Amino acid sequence: MDLISADNLSDEQLDRILGQAEHWLEANREGHKRHDLLDGRNVVMAFFEPSTRTMLSFDLAAQRLGAMVTTLPVGMSSVTKGESLADTALTIDAMRPDIFVMRHSEPGAPEQVAELMDADVVNAGDGTGQHPTQGLLDVATIRHHFGRVEGLKVAICGDIRHSRVANSTRQLLDRLGAEVRLAGPAALMPEGHDCDGIDEAVRGADVVMMLRIQRERLEADLGDKPGEYLSRYGLTAERFGTAASGAVVMHPGPMNRGVEIDGELADSEHSLITLQVEMGVATRMAVLDLVTENRRNA
Amino acid sequence: MDLISADNLSDEQLDRILGQAEHWLEANREGHKRHDLLDGRNVVMAFFEPSTRTMLSFDLAAQRLGAMVTTLPVGMSSVTKGESLADTALTIDAMRPDIFVMRHSEPGAPEQVAELMDADVVNAGDGTGQHPTQGLLDVATIRHHFGRVEGLKVAICGDIRHSRVANSTRQLLDRLGAEVRLAGPAALMPEGHDCDGIDEAVRGADVVMMLRIQRERLEADLGDKPGEYLSRYGLTAERFGTAASGAVVMHPGPMNRGVEIDGELADSEHSLITLQVEMGVATRMAVLDLVTENRRNA
Amino acid sequence: MDLISADNLSDEQLDRILGQAEHWLEANREGHKRHDLLDGRNVVMAFFEPSTRTMLSFDLAAQRLGAMVTTLPVGMSSVTKGESLADTALTIDAMRPDIFVMRHSEPGAPEQVAELMDADVVNAGDGTGQHPTQGLLDVATIRHHFGRVEGLKVAICGDIRHSRVANSTRQLLDRLGAEVRLAGPAALMPEGHDCDGIDEAVRGADVVMMLRIQRERLEADLGDKPGEYLSRYGLTAERFGTAASGAVVMHPGPMNRGVEIDGELADSEHSLITLQVEMGVATRMAVLDLVTENRRNA
Repeated sequence: MDLISADNLSDEQLDRILGQAEHWLEANREGHKRHDLLDGRNVVMAFFEPSTRTMLSFDLAAQRLGAMVTTLPVGMSSVTKGESLADTALTIDAMRPDIFVMRHSEPGAPEQVAELMDADVVNAGDGTGQHPTQGLLDVATIRHHFGRVEGLKVAICGDIRHSRVANSTRQLLDRLGAEVRLAGPAALMPEGHDCDGIDEAVRGADVVMMLRIQRERLEADLGDKPGEYLSRYGLTAERFGTAASGAVVMHPGPMNRGVEIDGELADSEHSLITLQVEMGVATRMAVLDLVTENRRNA
Repeated sequence: MDLISADNLSDEQLDRILGQAEHWLEANREGHKRHDLLDGRNVVMAFFEPSTRTMLSFDLAAQRLGAMVTTLPVGMSSVTKGESLADTALTIDAMRPDIFVMRHSEPGAPEQVAELMDADVVNAGDGTGQHPTQGLLDVATIRHHFGRVEGLKVAICGDIRHSRVANSTRQLLDRLGAEVRLAGPAALMPEGHDCDGIDEAVRGADVVMMLRIQRERLEADLGDKPGEYLSRYGLTAERFGTAASGAVVMHPGPMNRGVEIDGELADSEHSLITLQVEMGVATRMAVLDLVTENRRNA
Repeated sequence: MDLISADNLSDEQLDRILGQAEHWLEANREGHKRHDLLDGRNVVMAFFEPSTRTMLSFDLAAQRLGAMVTTLPVGMSSVTKGESLADTALTIDAMRPDIFVMRHSEPGAPEQVAELMDADVVNAGDGTGQHPTQGLLDVATIRHHFGRVEGLKVAICGDIRHSRVANSTRQLLDRLGAEVRLAGPAALMPEGHDCDGIDEAVRGADVVMMLRIQRERLEADLGDKPGEYLSRYGLTAERFGTAASGAVVMHPGPMNRGVEIDGELADSEHSLITLQVEMGVATRMAVLDLVTENRRNA
């Protein structure tokens, strides 16, 4: 099966991924980290839009499951030279990989590719569309820490409009019964969306999830004077002090310390930020397991 | 042994590669695709001229045979910085890889390197010189489809002059008893070569193999108005209609749809284009097996 | 444990690495070169400053020990985008690699990273700082050839000031009882260091180790006319003729033939240059073994 959007997952599949992510989180803390679930299988990764962080996470996940991994160089001049994305997909598929992990700047590209390929396609982020494994790792991290997702108040703050992270994470939080609050500069909110102020969003929240703000947008869309973003829209210690007792802070990374988040807060005991990264590998192992299940049982 | 040009192969070796390619084609359609023929062996790949498609094909081939694969980054600034190709080859060889797969823009470079290295050198394309594994996969594909090569009429059409594909494929087709017809714009034919017109070449052909035309050449050498190339020199449905009954179309990729080939034809039941890609991995597995045979039996 | 500088090693550890390097040198000459010492372990390599040669050497070393290896693309735009080196290190560490091999242009960067990471950090060169595995492979090569290091006269010649190779190799030679002579253009000697002339340094030396001179420095710092460097500061056959009987020539590569070293000398029977490369892989295997010993016994 393909994983294009977290919406594709049945309740049972979602539950299984979250459970297996816990399993792999533990397994990855052991010395010997190579397993044989994907032994003899090929994973091909193509990041048409660069991302070292997500690429590394998928690479470790696939290798730890015993797969043979090939990561195409960013740029991929030869495959794409004068070639449509569809032809590139057909060419790669003809080499019979089992899994194709792709990131692309165009929303919908992974879905288009998945229709053409026999390989199981995993969307590793498509422009401002979806980033399902990020959504899954976010809820897996919350579930790991709180033991549940249902009933928690989660504030997602920052550039909501351009964020596929916000899209995927928010859908899963909604589905699992969290109360989601969105906040950010008016220019960076989705069209027609009621915008909570950052202060209202954080007050009483159990989880405060800050999104990365792209530095180009700081000036272009916001006319930000250096450092002003933090006090107006970012997570300061003072603001975080109004969150619920036992509240935690999250961030998909990479962080702009001192811009969208106070650096000390990111390093504090309230931060789940490195746990998110660790859970990222574990969640992707669970995803690679799930999407290949039919193939392996065939 | 090295594989610099398909000419290097004895009849027995050629026959073995074509037979083994069939074997690996089947094996690659299975779930578990990792074998142990090259277990404990190192394959180092250096593409001084970028090519994601061929690199991916060799990478999958080598990994599926159980080898440890290292692909040097394109550019390779540090190895080549102020260093001759000979010194780069000696340096890599001193690390004792078993196989060195290389592509280079300069014809003859792989041969020069092979004389210096103990590793078995496989030429993955040297400028306008040779591309032996492409030639082998082409004839393997034809043989798979028709059950033979001998006696078939094969038209190779397009930029013959600058194509190492044409060189390698043509030599093997000649050798295996096919009737080869070459056609293309006069400016892109080899010096002093009698040029069949595209219409004459395709008429009655069993195989029509279209070559990629580089977009820069369209204007510079041909003064092509957009779209004119297809009707003058490309493979249209009408032209293909004059080929033999049961004729097939081939293309080494990446394709310029609507330039050298009609897009619908490329996707039709008459197309062997994705089979070529699939056979590419299988053929390269057969080649990696053959070139290391002496080494493995030593 | 981390390997930031060769100084970190106890006498026992140094002795063990040199002994194990001999073992792996032999093992790498066998057909089957994959071992299981690091089976199930992850090595992540990040070369913030490009180096294909050292990267290839570490990659082969890690794969031959059975590790899963991931090499981050040079540039690493996504990890580092707006992210401090510390945050990059924490992110990678959260994915729980066992070993982190890094090169960085800033002296001290690997030490800073090692304090943050649970992974064992191996310095693969930090600017003008240290390059401990180069130092180790140099002394391992000398020991292999002469059977000892103590008492040998070793001339290190060239751009001493900017060379981390000189730093690391020199410290180890001193420690193992060699007599080290440094020579080079006055502008390229360390501050306040007494500079032997090249003629004095080479005369009677058992080992003449030439360093790479960067072409930019030839003109900028030295006002060199093409070819003049060789006769003034380089290793000519004539100069080498004044060395001790049985003297050898070494170079960390990549060489500028005809600039710092006479090309024929580099290829002569007196040259240990390719042995250095071969010993490089073997030494790095010994290092990866040592640094993970505690981890593997935990």
